[in-house]
Amino acid sequence: MAIITLTTDFGEKDHFAGAVKGTIYSEMNEVRIVDISHSISPFHITEASYIIKNAYKCFPEGTIHIIGIDSELTPENKHLAVLLDGHYFICANNGILSLIASEIKPEKIVEINIHNTVDTNFPVLDVFVRVACHLARGGTLEVVGKTIENLKYLKEVEPYINAEKDQIIGHVLYIDNYGNVVTNINRKLFDNTGKGRSFTIKARTAKFTEIHETYSDAINFKLEKEKREEDGKKLAIFNSAGYIELAIYKSNPSTVGSASTLFGLDLRDSITINFNKDVRTNSKDGL
Amino acid sequence: MAIITLTTDFGEKDHFAGAVKGTIYSEMNEVRIVDISHSISPFHITEASYIIKNAYKCFPEGTIHIIGIDSELTPENKHLAVLLDGHYFICANNGILSLIASEIKPEKIVEINIHNTVDTNFPVLDVFVRVACHLARGGTLEVVGKTIENLKYLKEVEPYINAEKDQIIGHVLYIDNYGNVVTNINRKLFDNTGKGRSFTIKARTAKFTEIHETYSDAINFKLEKEKREEDGKKLAIFNSAGYIELAIYKSNPSTVGSASTLFGLDLRDSITINFNKDVRTNSKDGL
Amino acid sequence: MAIITLTTDFGEKDHFAGAVKGTIYSEMNEVRIVDISHSISPFHITEASYIIKNAYKCFPEGTIHIIGIDSELTPENKHLAVLLDGHYFICANNGILSLIASEIKPEKIVEINIHNTVDTNFPVLDVFVRVACHLARGGTLEVVGKTIENLKYLKEVEPYINAEKDQIIGHVLYIDNYGNVVTNINRKLFDNTGKGRSFTIKARTAKFTEIHETYSDAINFKLEKEKREEDGKKLAIFNSAGYIELAIYKSNPSTVGSASTLFGLDLRDSITINFNKDVRTNSKDGL
Repeated sequence: MAIITLTTDFGEKDHFAGAVKGTIYSEMNEVRIVDISHSISPFHITEASYIIKNAYKCFPEGTIHIIGIDSELTPENKHLAVLLDGHYFICANNGILSLIASEIKPEKIVEINIHNTVDTNFPVLDVFVRVACHLARGGTLEVVGKTIENLKYLKEVEPYINAEKDQIIGHVLYIDNYGNVVTNINRKLFDNTGKGRSFTIKARTAKFTEIHETYSDAINFKLEKEKREEDGKKLAIFNSAGYIELAIYKSNPSTVGSASTLFGLDLRDSITINFNKDVRTNSKDGL
Repeated sequence: MAIITLTTDFGEKDHFAGAVKGTIYSEMNEVRIVDISHSISPFHITEASYIIKNAYKCFPEGTIHIIGIDSELTPENKHLAVLLDGHYFICANNGILSLIASEIKPEKIVEINIHNTVDTNFPVLDVFVRVACHLARGGTLEVVGKTIENLKYLKEVEPYINAEKDQIIGHVLYIDNYGNVVTNINRKLFDNTGKGRSFTIKARTAKFTEIHETYSDAINFKLEKEKREEDGKKLAIFNSAGYIELAIYKSNPSTVGSASTLFGLDLRDSITINFNKDVRTNSKDGL
Repeated sequence: MAIITLTTDFGEKDHFAGAVKGTIYSEMNEVRIVDISHSISPFHITEASYIIKNAYKCFPEGTIHIIGIDSELTPENKHLAVLLDGHYFICANNGILSLIASEIKPEKIVEINIHNTVDTNFPVLDVFVRVACHLARGGTLEVVGKTIENLKYLKEVEPYINAEKDQIIGHVLYIDNYGNVVTNINRKLFDNTGKGRSFTIKARTAKFTEIHETYSDAINFKLEKEKREEDGKKLAIFNSAGYIELAIYKSNPSTVGSASTLFGLDLRDSITINFNKDVRTNSKDGL
């Protein structure tokens, strides 16, 4: 059974997501619809790009992903259907696939041209669903659009590396449900630049000299519970998406505060990593 | 496979929606459950009425819609099962179907009388689900209730038209996820009253002399991006539900503000349309 | 078709829930995934315990419930798979099953030992999903872990009863979507302790001498609508989960206020029930 996923900024309240699902089930009975998220901040392309990147690859090959953010058709915002890494993506050409496509080259990109009437203000329903159902029934990309070569990219996604290769300047890419701060610096870039050298991560007043693999890794469980430094323990971690994340151990944004509030970090704030000359030792002490 | 949709004010956190789904799957294995919304404001019948109206018609005929808002059985709030426009609706008789039934006459209305014990404080689970599964298995309305003639209507849903037929006074019906302000004036009423005359829409300090078909239609893409008046551009539009909506182009309520906050408009605030004597020209300039 | 439910603190926005669903569908095509809640407060074990208790029993026997709260593996937080009341639960051993297991003895508990690599910071995806799919395919608990005897329990879940058996001291267990205040005192404990005596429930300044069966039960529908004391009517009720709940009739937390705000009650605040010597009469007058 074909799978169609939905990633939108429709919110949880409005009828939009329900209308889209109803329309898909009206077109075809045998299909599975999976919500990835409807709570992307309105028109927030970077957030959507981060979320779809981390969710899509968990689905089986051949899954069709509808991304409904900033999707109204304009002279500068064309509609695309893209085959990439064995998955189909239907979205506007506004940079929303930047994070995925910067790592994996798209196999095929078509600019959708099935618009009989250009004037719809609900393109996800009127255009994306039709394309998705066409693909779910085994249709080809060529039928719904004409091939183009390149996607639009978001400029601000890539971190900066200095000429001496001893500094990475990134920024806050995403703040998650726990208030943890996800940077745009991934493990591969960090390893390739750092080459095993010791380092300091700076983000406003917060500093880190170690990056953990799990959150609990920052806690010394050999000490009794009372003597451990658990509550409000700050740490850097490679998160499950492979990015460096600045976190508070077991934070709750609505009560004790979160990494975002405690470090004073918001989307796009800068994060700097300085590499030293010495090779890193496996210190277990964060700053 | 039968489809049962859910529209409630249960919220996203509590166990209520999960309990309802589990109960349906316990009654029958072969059924598709689709969430329309669980984030209706508590006991907000108008909101629910707007959302179910715009979502239901996207589903296939025969779909069963459970509406769980203000559904406790009282002497004044009876339980209904309604066949309307080929769809089944199960809800309390509190006006929640007003927006649909004011346009399309119900084919059959029954007052549910399967309540063995009246005392349940979770009627969606204990009554609506049983009726829904009965219908999903092909059962008839007559088995679960006795036929009645009329639905209760919300008084405040209809706009007012003056005797001279040159003024419509409506109000704010709904505020969507983008903070856009949906009025209770739909395209049919506007066209029938205006008959092509030019007009001015007034809502507090905001004025509009044009109604667009798409959001982007308000932007002049012939100008360079820097010279366009995009950010914070206010516009009136016929939204995808067919109602006049006052919007801000690409608004984000949590950052730059939205139509609701910028125009100072809240639910039930009034919106006035005054028609002039001259016939409208297709001006592309909003005020 | 096997059913897997999800109860987590992932939130509605992040990719976590979507990633989990995609991974399940990648492992097996014929399975039904049902969201119970992704909006548990971060790391809030009591909330999760209350929600899973009230939702699980509505599902068919054999359903597999993944509970993803505070699930990182540590020396003190082992991973469990539990068979209880005919249902499977996969979670960390942090007290999350306390409310269920205090009433129904688990049939089998295994400590999961399929962790090839201990270092994952997304155990729901990397461990719980694998165990869930193993069970969904008909696999046994013994294959994924070694049997243990006891679950960890939350200390604070049980109310206190004094030696004279004329007082119950409980506390606020949960605050629901309507702002109603759920106590940790259930009907059985109340009946067994009170034995039909009249009583007074005190919670800060609020007092109640009656517990209703439905919300509307507190309203006198024989009076005309204008003369009824409806708006802001406070009442105590046995809620649908069987717990004593302090409520406001048709409250809306975001407008007129809720039981939680009006009574000034928050999670863990204490609730006292004092029983009198006389036998209760069926008074319909709350204080």
